[in-house]
Amino acid sequence: MEFIDGGVTAPKGFYAANTAAGIKYKDRDDMAMIASTADCVTAGTYTKNVVKAAPVLWDRDITASDKPVRAVVVNAGIANACTGREGLEYCKRTSEAAAKALSEKYGASIEKDQILVASTGVIGMQLPIEKLETGARDMTGKLDNTREAANLAARAIMTTDTIPKEAAATVEIGGQTVTIAAMTKGSGMIHPNMCTMLCFVTTDAAIDKKLLQTSLSDVVEDTFNMISVDGDTSTNDTCVVLANGLAGNRPIDSESSDYEEFKAALFEVLKKLAMMMGGDGEGATALFEVIVNGAKTKEEAKILAKSVITSSLTKAAIYGHDANWGRILCALGYSGIEFDPDAVELTFSSAAGTLLIARDGHGTDFDEEEATRILSEDHVTAICEMNRGGASATAWGCDLTHEYVSINADYRS
Amino acid sequence: MEFIDGGVTAPKGFYAANTAAGIKYKDRDDMAMIASTADCVTAGTYTKNVVKAAPVLWDRDITASDKPVRAVVVNAGIANACTGREGLEYCKRTSEAAAKALSEKYGASIEKDQILVASTGVIGMQLPIEKLETGARDMTGKLDNTREAANLAARAIMTTDTIPKEAAATVEIGGQTVTIAAMTKGSGMIHPNMCTMLCFVTTDAAIDKKLLQTSLSDVVEDTFNMISVDGDTSTNDTCVVLANGLAGNRPIDSESSDYEEFKAALFEVLKKLAMMMGGDGEGATALFEVIVNGAKTKEEAKILAKSVITSSLTKAAIYGHDANWGRILCALGYSGIEFDPDAVELTFSSAAGTLLIARDGHGTDFDEEEATRILSEDHVTAICEMNRGGASATAWGCDLTHEYVSINADYRS
Repeated sequence: MEFIDGGVTAPKGFYAANTAAGIKYKDRDDMAMIASTADCVTAGTYTKNVVKAAPVLWDRDITASDKPVRAVVVNAGIANACTGREGLEYCKRTSEAAAKALSEKYGASIEKDQILVASTGVIGMQLPIEKLETGARDMTGKLDNTREAANLAARAIMTTDTIPKEAAATVEIGGQTVTIAAMTKGSGMIHPNMCTMLCFVTTDAAIDKKLLQTSLSDVVEDTFNMISVDGDTSTNDTCVVLANGLAGNRPIDSESSDYEEFKAALFEVLKKLAMMMGGDGEGATALFEVIVNGAKTKEEAKILAKSVITSSLTKAAIYGHDANWGRILCALGYSGIEFDPDAVELTFSSAAGTLLIARDGHGTDFDEEEATRILSEDHVTAICEMNRGGASATAWGCDLTHEYVSINADYRS
Repeated sequence: MEFIDGGVTAPKGFYAANTAAGIKYKDRDDMAMIASTADCVTAGTYTKNVVKAAPVLWDRDITASDKPVRAVVVNAGIANACTGREGLEYCKRTSEAAAKALSEKYGASIEKDQILVASTGVIGMQLPIEKLETGARDMTGKLDNTREAANLAARAIMTTDTIPKEAAATVEIGGQTVTIAAMTKGSGMIHPNMCTMLCFVTTDAAIDKKLLQTSLSDVVEDTFNMISVDGDTSTNDTCVVLANGLAGNRPIDSESSDYEEFKAALFEVLKKLAMMMGGDGEGATALFEVIVNGAKTKEEAKILAKSVITSSLTKAAIYGHDANWGRILCALGYSGIEFDPDAVELTFSSAAGTLLIARDGHGTDFDEEEATRILSEDHVTAICEMNRGGASATAWGCDLTHEYVSINADYRS
């Protein structure tokens, strides 16, 4: 598998569009559409939050059914969460508008339950539904399969994100080139539990629906479910994949080596995006990566890594480039995992070097200036060697900064 | 029971002292001592963090034994956590120095395992043990039972706290006046799991050791274990109570009405301190209180309340006086409790008024200016009516501010 420069239009048959619908933001795009010229099998993972946004309920029903999907319509600005019965009505009307426009464009008979919808932004406000309907119609007329169209779509769904997040890769499956691409957004309220804020994966792979879901669910566990910006699991978390089969590969219909190839490529694409999300967490100045090695089980390694990545004190220390390793040991300690603190070895690593900071239950006599230099990079890694087994896990997050507080003290105005 | 103006010297027979031992801070007191003229029965609750500071291990052994305790020696500046074997040696030497000085002072034979020790401050640095020994000796000579002595002791154990935290109350038990007093400190790394940073309770009640422990454990669950500043459970959390029996009350030796009176008074004293800790969280501008009513069980109510009190996004919104109620519903939703979001009613309340903000799954048409006025007070309450049962719980915390980040980005220097 190999990364390529591309976005969601990279796989065959996928088109994208964007528009400024004027939902909440001024002078910027706030809607995006992805459409496929051929029917897609789909899979999705959604928030485990009891409070689910209306689009989550809408998409969950569709991806659980055998309905072939043709498009996704996304808006930024207002999240359509905590919007009661009206919220679901808005999903229906947005899908209807898109289905009607797409049917006319393609001379096909596309129905509303072949259109996925997604929303991100403020919770608890109602959407201006007419603007969404108009936006869906406008975008249908502008669908394009260029690199730029994909990038503009990725930009249109940003909220507090500072960079658009796209990735694409090709992989040979049975002698055919299959392309997997995705765009994602998410910067605050990021502590995915099932999947992250919004992620849309396109692929021209021919793959069985059940295997598509299995591969997505497995990959999400080790990518998006391992990032945290602020510990807040969103009401809108959604990750869907659309596979239209246009690559012409021998269909993936069993857990064969073809399937493993596909899944490995999907993992790399989503991992790249997960790391981009961590590094672009609200207010972040650095991507903070926590690697736990030598745990007894993978589940244990994940719990330990997530405990460190969510520690406010550790994150503030990373912001200050302060090698305050006691906070990391403390966060490992309250994770719920029983371990011998004296057996743990802590190392800081970045492009500026690698330094063993603590072992045998106390600090090494490390050089503070060197530690500060290592922690001043924009990608900082803490490696926790637990010395009690062979399992590993990696989590991604960011530092806790003044800017995070500024962004969230008055997000609604 | 009735609150009185007083600190740890309010109960009969308790003396306090403080000194500037020069451990880490410049030009301020950094050690405190509490001593009793009579033997004390003790009880303690400690951090559940796997990484336990040396004084936690030292005190746990002593409070679990039947040894009568005579004094507590506390230092601020360096926490004696993650200090390996040396850390425990320092506990022993500090206790020895205090025991020797107290034996001379009182003409008694006091041993090192009758002295509790506690530390708070930076994790992962070794203590200057000679300074601790000198400090313990100096303070023995300065022990005093005045109101001022108690206050100076409470000040000496502060780290990033901005106010000393003391409370005292009297309660009639079997015709005798019993006094309960306590001092506590804690401002960051506050998410107690068993008990909070450091809390020292003195009482002249005559009470059975086992009942003292039961009452403390029960009360801590609903007071200190319900506060959170930053979700980080400390390595040093310690709450100990010393009861010297000098009130002369009919000894409390069964779960009688006397016991209930004592426990209720202990609850009020510790609740008052828990709220002071929440309001004085690192960088806080407001005490944030979350009341969950109408839950199915008390355990469920606690989980829901704690999920809201620890939400970074909710805390940042409180800082911005922004009625961003969707974040509260979101935090309830990811708590792990299954409930019907449409049944929840959210209310904001403070000295400036009370306002129903959301019900039936969406916002009420509330007045934003009125909401901002309510949220601008220095004690703000969110009331979550779950409408699914009769259980309640209250949690305390604070807002998330720029100052919190400033304090923690470079705490060690």
